[in-house]
Amino acid sequence: MSQESLKFKSLLYSSHDSKDCTNVLKVHNYTPNVSADSSIVLRTLAFPINPSDLNQLEGVYPSKPEKVLDYSTEEPSAIAGNEGLFEVVSVPSGVKTLKPGDRVIPLQANFGTWSTYRTCDKESDLIKIEGVDIFTAATIAVNGCTAYQMVNDYIDWDPNGNDWLIQNAGTSSVSKIVTQIAKAKNIKTLSVIRDRENFEEVAESLENKYGATKVISESENGGKEFGKEVIPKVLGPNAQVKLALNSVGGISCANIARKLSYNGLMLTYGGMSKQPLTFPTGLFIFKALRSHGFWVTQNSKDDPENKIKTVNEVVKLYRDGKIISPKEDARTLEWDVKNASDEQVLQLISEGIKTKGGKNIVVLKW
Amino acid sequence: MSQESLKFKSLLYSSHDSKDCTNVLKVHNYTPNVSADSSIVLRTLAFPINPSDLNQLEGVYPSKPEKVLDYSTEEPSAIAGNEGLFEVVSVPSGVKTLKPGDRVIPLQANFGTWSTYRTCDKESDLIKIEGVDIFTAATIAVNGCTAYQMVNDYIDWDPNGNDWLIQNAGTSSVSKIVTQIAKAKNIKTLSVIRDRENFEEVAESLENKYGATKVISESENGGKEFGKEVIPKVLGPNAQVKLALNSVGGISCANIARKLSYNGLMLTYGGMSKQPLTFPTGLFIFKALRSHGFWVTQNSKDDPENKIKTVNEVVKLYRDGKIISPKEDARTLEWDVKNASDEQVLQLISEGIKTKGGKNIVVLKW
Repeated sequence: MSQESLKFKSLLYSSHDSKDCTNVLKVHNYTPNVSADSSIVLRTLAFPINPSDLNQLEGVYPSKPEKVLDYSTEEPSAIAGNEGLFEVVSVPSGVKTLKPGDRVIPLQANFGTWSTYRTCDKESDLIKIEGVDIFTAATIAVNGCTAYQMVNDYIDWDPNGNDWLIQNAGTSSVSKIVTQIAKAKNIKTLSVIRDRENFEEVAESLENKYGATKVISESENGGKEFGKEVIPKVLGPNAQVKLALNSVGGISCANIARKLSYNGLMLTYGGMSKQPLTFPTGLFIFKALRSHGFWVTQNSKDDPENKIKTVNEVVKLYRDGKIISPKEDARTLEWDVKNASDEQVLQLISEGIKTKGGKNIVVLKW
Repeated sequence: MSQESLKFKSLLYSSHDSKDCTNVLKVHNYTPNVSADSSIVLRTLAFPINPSDLNQLEGVYPSKPEKVLDYSTEEPSAIAGNEGLFEVVSVPSGVKTLKPGDRVIPLQANFGTWSTYRTCDKESDLIKIEGVDIFTAATIAVNGCTAYQMVNDYIDWDPNGNDWLIQNAGTSSVSKIVTQIAKAKNIKTLSVIRDRENFEEVAESLENKYGATKVISESENGGKEFGKEVIPKVLGPNAQVKLALNSVGGISCANIARKLSYNGLMLTYGGMSKQPLTFPTGLFIFKALRSHGFWVTQNSKDDPENKIKTVNEVVKLYRDGKIISPKEDARTLEWDVKNASDEQVLQLISEGIKTKGGKNIVVLKW
């Protein structure tokens, strides 16, 4: 396939809107100026709409792509989207690790994935991915890698001990993957979820389907007597709660921090409640609590080799049947590449952006 | 001097009172059961009344001495006080590193220092101290060691760079010692103090007497524009704010955390505001903030060798004239050992306990 014949359609932005980011997105059609002799050409199969993608459009995310004139626009522009799955269309001579038909994901964020096609100059900017479904591959770089690195890269776990992690937002996609990775390593999981009418049903699903050891509600998490009396029984003898994963903030953060053992680590990777993190002073001084942040984007920049290793390890866990993707949270939006008008594409993406509370994945139908 | 001739007078407690800890203190006279052939006998020269001593009496401090029957009491009791300066009265044969007349401080907390005399079985439980005044020696184990270890043991400082630490409670004794130790290491100090009418006067004293590089008020610390516009000018080019020392909590903690450079460390060693610590979520995720605690008591238990090294280093800084003790904060209470009645001793100590906001040091007049 010669690149000259390709028309690219991308979702671009040249400015930001902190209130409604759909205002700044434009569907743009162009033929890129790069040559297939020097660039790898990629066809997009799927991309998720992640919260960080939206924060980028809003102009409030610290990591962002450079706005450039590469796409035949008048103003410097960037292609939206950080994560996605591509199929290799063609490779220039000299490229050894990739061939047409291979599936790849970008090594780094800011790749620009909301597009029918992309080009890439260096094969080392792509990670080949095989043996997992499209949904899993298109979401592995953010959720899969976040979950794996948080469980794997910070704690000296004792697989023969009674080691625990505690996490809030226990129903989130990341939490469900965390739970399964922990189980595969023989680490027990105490998952905190919001109070809800069907608490038992949700808790049972987290325990039976994903392997959470115990699920408790936020009100139980905050209950003084519950913490003193029930939690020690749940944890059992010689329990070590070594890791707390916080993506909520506010009082939920303080309440999971309290359950950490001496010298435990809290990793914060999100702040869904939009409340600042709070901690009782004594946890730091007398229980040697350590509170750090986790950001997969920065980790991948700082240590690209570890990102590649992480993706490969997570893929292996999927292939071995140790983890399954939490697809029940996701809504699939189909982009009919041949037939959809620009307006329909914009409408589709805007719909994905505006549906809060679920994960939207756009699958391109070629 | 034979030990048989010694009458000990100690401030003991056998229970706790979380509201008024003077209720549980008793003055007790006794002749100890230990022999001068096997124990080092110590005469007390001075001891401070530290907040942690009071928290122990209140029953709310995680570190506490065992209550024993060693002092001829009916109920198991402990001697109050964790820190103090002693003079060696006699040593059993076999003790090589100490001789009568030497001045020593306890290696660990929970020694029981509010007493005319103490005995000690192992010379390795004492640190010999020479060449500093009584006030300095009697307060070096808590304030001096806290200040030194926080500045020295956590950060890879660049003495040729533009490295900064920021601290709240800038007028506290620890902060004044921190400031001087930092200056001796060519580290700059941004000290935050409470708003007050004589702000200029206090700031000038911290800058001129103790060497603070810059003093700002809590309202400046919290001011958005001040933080954006003034602080960068104060810090100067290529500034690295590597360490934040928090002994206040609440919003002050968040506001000093915000001023840390990427991957900065906050150490919390106190919580004077009695407010929980709060942090904006983004500082952890996007600025790689690390928040830890500092507790000199635990550090000394975990690494007694480092405690001894720390004391020696701090003594050297005093001797070299690099630091002076912040004595203007302290009030000296004189315990007239020969003449004071038990009631007068209890009165003196209670007065020290009830005077908040200043450091009380009890000096024994022999």
